[in-house]
Amino acid sequence: MAPTVQCLDTATVATVGKGAVPVVGQAPEKKMQCSNLLDADEFRRQGHQVIDFISDYYGSMGDYPVHPSVTPGFLRNLLPAEAPCRPEPDAFGSALKDVRDIILPGMTHWQSPRHFAHFPASSSTIGALGEALTAGINVVPFTWAASPAAAELEMVVVDWLGKALHLPESLLFAGGGGGTILGTSCEAILCALVAARDKKLAEIGENRICDLVVYCSDQTHFAFRKAARIAGIQRDHCRAIHTCHEDMFALSPTELQAAMQADVDAGLVPLFLCATIGTTQTTAVDPIGELCAVTAPHGVWLHVDAAYAGSALVCPEFTHMIDGVEAVESFSMNAHKWLLANNDCCVMWVKKPSALVAALGTEQEYILKDAASEGHDVVDYKDWNMTLTRRFRALKMWLVLRCYGVHGLRDHIRSHVRMAVEFEDMVRADERFEVVTERTFALVCFRIRPVDKFGGQKTANDLNRALLEQVNAVTSGPYMSSANVGGMFMLRCAVGSTLTEQHHVAHGWKVVQDQASVILGKMEIIHTLCSK
Amino acid sequence: MAPTVQCLDTATVATVGKGAVPVVGQAPEKKMQCSNLLDADEFRRQGHQVIDFISDYYGSMGDYPVHPSVTPGFLRNLLPAEAPCRPEPDAFGSALKDVRDIILPGMTHWQSPRHFAHFPASSSTIGALGEALTAGINVVPFTWAASPAAAELEMVVVDWLGKALHLPESLLFAGGGGGTILGTSCEAILCALVAARDKKLAEIGENRICDLVVYCSDQTHFAFRKAARIAGIQRDHCRAIHTCHEDMFALSPTELQAAMQADVDAGLVPLFLCATIGTTQTTAVDPIGELCAVTAPHGVWLHVDAAYAGSALVCPEFTHMIDGVEAVESFSMNAHKWLLANNDCCVMWVKKPSALVAALGTEQEYILKDAASEGHDVVDYKDWNMTLTRRFRALKMWLVLRCYGVHGLRDHIRSHVRMAVEFEDMVRADERFEVVTERTFALVCFRIRPVDKFGGQKTANDLNRALLEQVNAVTSGPYMSSANVGGMFMLRCAVGSTLTEQHHVAHGWKVVQDQASVILGKMEIIHTLCSK
Repeated sequence: MAPTVQCLDTATVATVGKGAVPVVGQAPEKKMQCSNLLDADEFRRQGHQVIDFISDYYGSMGDYPVHPSVTPGFLRNLLPAEAPCRPEPDAFGSALKDVRDIILPGMTHWQSPRHFAHFPASSSTIGALGEALTAGINVVPFTWAASPAAAELEMVVVDWLGKALHLPESLLFAGGGGGTILGTSCEAILCALVAARDKKLAEIGENRICDLVVYCSDQTHFAFRKAARIAGIQRDHCRAIHTCHEDMFALSPTELQAAMQADVDAGLVPLFLCATIGTTQTTAVDPIGELCAVTAPHGVWLHVDAAYAGSALVCPEFTHMIDGVEAVESFSMNAHKWLLANNDCCVMWVKKPSALVAALGTEQEYILKDAASEGHDVVDYKDWNMTLTRRFRALKMWLVLRCYGVHGLRDHIRSHVRMAVEFEDMVRADERFEVVTERTFALVCFRIRPVDKFGGQKTANDLNRALLEQVNAVTSGPYMSSANVGGMFMLRCAVGSTLTEQHHVAHGWKVVQDQASVILGKMEIIHTLCSK
Repeated sequence: MAPTVQCLDTATVATVGKGAVPVVGQAPEKKMQCSNLLDADEFRRQGHQVIDFISDYYGSMGDYPVHPSVTPGFLRNLLPAEAPCRPEPDAFGSALKDVRDIILPGMTHWQSPRHFAHFPASSSTIGALGEALTAGINVVPFTWAASPAAAELEMVVVDWLGKALHLPESLLFAGGGGGTILGTSCEAILCALVAARDKKLAEIGENRICDLVVYCSDQTHFAFRKAARIAGIQRDHCRAIHTCHEDMFALSPTELQAAMQADVDAGLVPLFLCATIGTTQTTAVDPIGELCAVTAPHGVWLHVDAAYAGSALVCPEFTHMIDGVEAVESFSMNAHKWLLANNDCCVMWVKKPSALVAALGTEQEYILKDAASEGHDVVDYKDWNMTLTRRFRALKMWLVLRCYGVHGLRDHIRSHVRMAVEFEDMVRADERFEVVTERTFALVCFRIRPVDKFGGQKTANDLNRALLEQVNAVTSGPYMSSANVGGMFMLRCAVGSTLTEQHHVAHGWKVVQDQASVILGKMEIIHTLCSK
C-alpha cells in the first residue's frame, strides 16, 4: 500500500496516464523550465551564506562537546514525517538555522580539536573547498571522453601523490602501473581482491571459487573480511593469522607461511594477502618485504592497506615502514584520514592495471567514445572500480598537493606526531599508567596498569573501560576510543584533528588523569571496606 | 625502486629511524601545530572566492562547447610531473586560475544547458551547497554513535523521499523496512545482491555459490553484470533475457519464467532479478507486478533499479510505472541524476534490513558504541553497505527536499518532460526522422529513417552514427549520445540539465536537422553519381 501522500496535486492527478503531461496552465508554474534552480546569482547569495556558516562553525568548534548527550530518536522525533509540499519562505535560511540549532548539537564533531577517537578525518580549508568546487562543477568522469580534463588530472595527481609518498615507480603511471581515487579503503581492497580472484580463476577454473583462501592478521581491519565475503570467498576461508604483543601485533611471516602451506596441503588455493601499515587498533606495521617473500612462491596477490599511516609516508623518516613494497601488487591509503583531503578520498595504486580492467571492465556502445581518444591509451576509470558514476575527487587532491606542497603536508604530519610524542611522554611519566604498544605514528595506546590489590589483570579491562566511559563523559573533555588487543583493553588517543593544538592534548591528558584518580580512589575505598 | 624525490628534506632525513621525530628547531616550521590549515578566517576568505568562481561558471556555462576538442595527453603534458615542495605565493588563487584556464576548457560540461547525452547529472544550488556544507562539517557517520544526528537525519530523509516517490510503506522505516544513501546504483545493486546471495546460501549451503543464477534483461545496465561478477556469480550464470521492439524492450515475464524453469530443471538455483524502471538506452519499463509473480514461487530476490526514472515517481502521473512494487525486496534510484541532489546520491530501500545486516554487518569493540544507544534499535549504517567510511549525504538530500519541496521537484521533472515532448513532436514533424521507441520520461530516441535508395536498413546505422558525430562536432551545438537496441543505432536526446530551456532544445533540434540535411545531401550526390 502506498502511504497517504499529503502533496496531492489535484490539478494534475486527473491527467494520470502513461507519460501524461499536465496541460500547461493548469500546472502551478508558468515557465516551461525551472532554470532558477541553478541561477548564478542565487547560488552566489546562498553560497556566501554557507561559507559564513561553515567558517562560524570552525571558529566555534572548540565550544561544542565532541560527542553529544542525546538519546536515540532525539532528532527523528523533532522532524516532520514528510517532506514539505512547497518550501516555507526563506527555506534555505530556516534550514541553515535548523542545522545550527538542532543538527550540529546532535553531531559528533570530528573536526573538534578534542576529537582523539578512531582515526582522524582531517579537514582542511583547501580540502573542504575542493569538495565544494567539485560539487559545483558536478561532472561524472567515468570515461576519458566523459570529462577529459578530469580523467587526466586524476592520472597526474595519483602520480604526484605516489611520488610524494615515496611509492615505487612500478605502482605509478610513470612506471607502467597506475592509480585511481575511490571513496574508501573498503572499495580499494574489494577491487584488488576481485582482480586477484578473477586472475586466479582464469588459471584454475571459475568453479574453483570455493577453494580460494585469503589471508590477513587478527589485526586487519574488518573491511577485508567484508570484502572477502562480498567477493564470494567462503566465510571459513579467510585466515586471520594470530599476532602477539612481542611482535607488536604485526603479522608474522612464519605463521603466514605455515598457514598457506597447510592450505596448499589441503588442496586449497592461496589467493590474497591483505597486509597493513598502521592497523586500526594499535597502528601495527606488517613487514611487507618479508611477507612478499612468503606470498610470491604461492602466486598470492599482496595488497597493502595503509589507510591511516599511508599519509605519514610523505615524511622520509617513515618510508622504511614500507621496505620491500616494490614487490606488492597493490597499495591503498585514505588521504581523507590524515592528509587533509576531506571525505572521501582513498587512493589506490596497482602494478598491473590490466588485471583490474579484466575483472571490472565493461564495453558498451552507449558509453560515448571520443574519436580523439581512438588509438590512444586513455584511461576509462569506470573499468578500474566498481561503479560507473564517480565524483571528480582528483580536483580536491590536486588542490591540496598544490596549495600545501609536499613540505606543508610533512609539517602537518610531524606536528601531530610531535603532539603524540608529548602525550606518550606524559603517560609514561605517570606510573599509574602504561603505554601498551609502542607508538609509531600519532596514536598512543595506553591503559591504567593492572593493580594487584584491585584484582590485577582480571579487573584491568573493566577498570579501563570505566575510565574511557568517564573520560568521554566530561563535556569539555577529549573524545577517545579503545582497542582490545591480546586480551588487553586500552584507550586510544589518536592525534590528528587539524585544529588540535598542544594545549588540547595536555588538557586531554589532564582529564584522563583526573578521571583515573576518581576511579582509583573509589576502588581504594571499596578495597579498604572489603579488607576490613 | 623509489623514484627520485625532489622534495628531499635534508634537515630531517638524517633523523630516519622508527618513528623518529625531527628535532624541533631543525624542522622548517616553528609552531607545534598547523592550525592555520583550517583557520576560520582563511576559510571564509577563500570560500567566498570559490563561491564566486562557481557562480561565474554557472553564469557562463552556455558559452562553453559542451564537449571539448582535446586530444589525450593535453592536460598531462601541461602539468609538472611532481607536486610542488612548497606552495607558490597565493597558490589557491593561481590554482583557481588554472582551473578556469586549463581544466574547465578540457571538461565535458555536464551542467551545460546543451548537455543531452547519457542521463542528466542534475545540479541545483541547494544540491551543490549541500555538498559544500557536508564537506565543511566533515563527519564520518558509520554508526549512530559516530554522529547521531547524521544517522537519524538519514533515516528521516529516506522515509521523506520514499513517501515523495510513492514507494510502499513496507520499504520505509515507517513500515518495517528502511533505506540508506549510497554513492551509486552499482553499490546498491551489489549490496542487495550480496544480501540475497548470503540469505540463499544460508539455506542451501555456502559451497553451492557456483549453482546460483541471476537474471536481467539485455537492456539492464552493465552495473548489474559487474555486481554479479564482483559477488562471485559465475560469468555464464547471468541470464540477460532478450527483449524486443514490440514490447518496447521491456523484460518479458514469460521469457523470464522459461529461463528460470530451465535453470531449475538443470539443477541450478535462481537467486536474483534486477528489473529496471527506465533502462539506460531507451528508458524501457519492466513490468514489476508481473515479474514479481514469476520470481515469488522461486524465492528469487527482486531488486528494482530506477536509477534514472525513480526521480519521475515524484509525479503522480508516473506512479503506475511501478504497479506491484509492494512485492519487491529492494529498490534504488539516483537522486543525483534527475532530482537535483548533485553527485553522489543513490538511495536504496529494502523490505528486510536484517538481510542486509546479516550479509554486510560487522561487530568490533573498537567501533565505539554509545551507552545511550544500548537497548535501542539504532541504525549503524556501516552494516547496510560495503564501506565503513561514508559521507553525510543525508544533509544534502534533506536540504533539497526541504528547500524545493515535493511540488517543486514535480515542477522540475515536468518541465523536462514537457521539453522532451516538444522535442519528440519536432522529430515526428520531420518525415526524414522517426522516433524509434516511445518516449516515456524525458528521453527521446530517434534516428534518420532508413532510405531505400541509400541502402535501407543496411546503411541506416552508419548514417545515424555519422549524424551523431556531426551533431556533436558543432561547437555551439547540443551534445547527445546513442543507443543501439534491437540492431538499431539511434540518437538519444535526454532532457534533464537544470539549466536547459526551451530554446536550447529547439536549437538542438535545428542542429540535428541541419546536419542531417548535409549528410543526406552528400548521400544524394553519391547516389546520383553512382546511378549514372
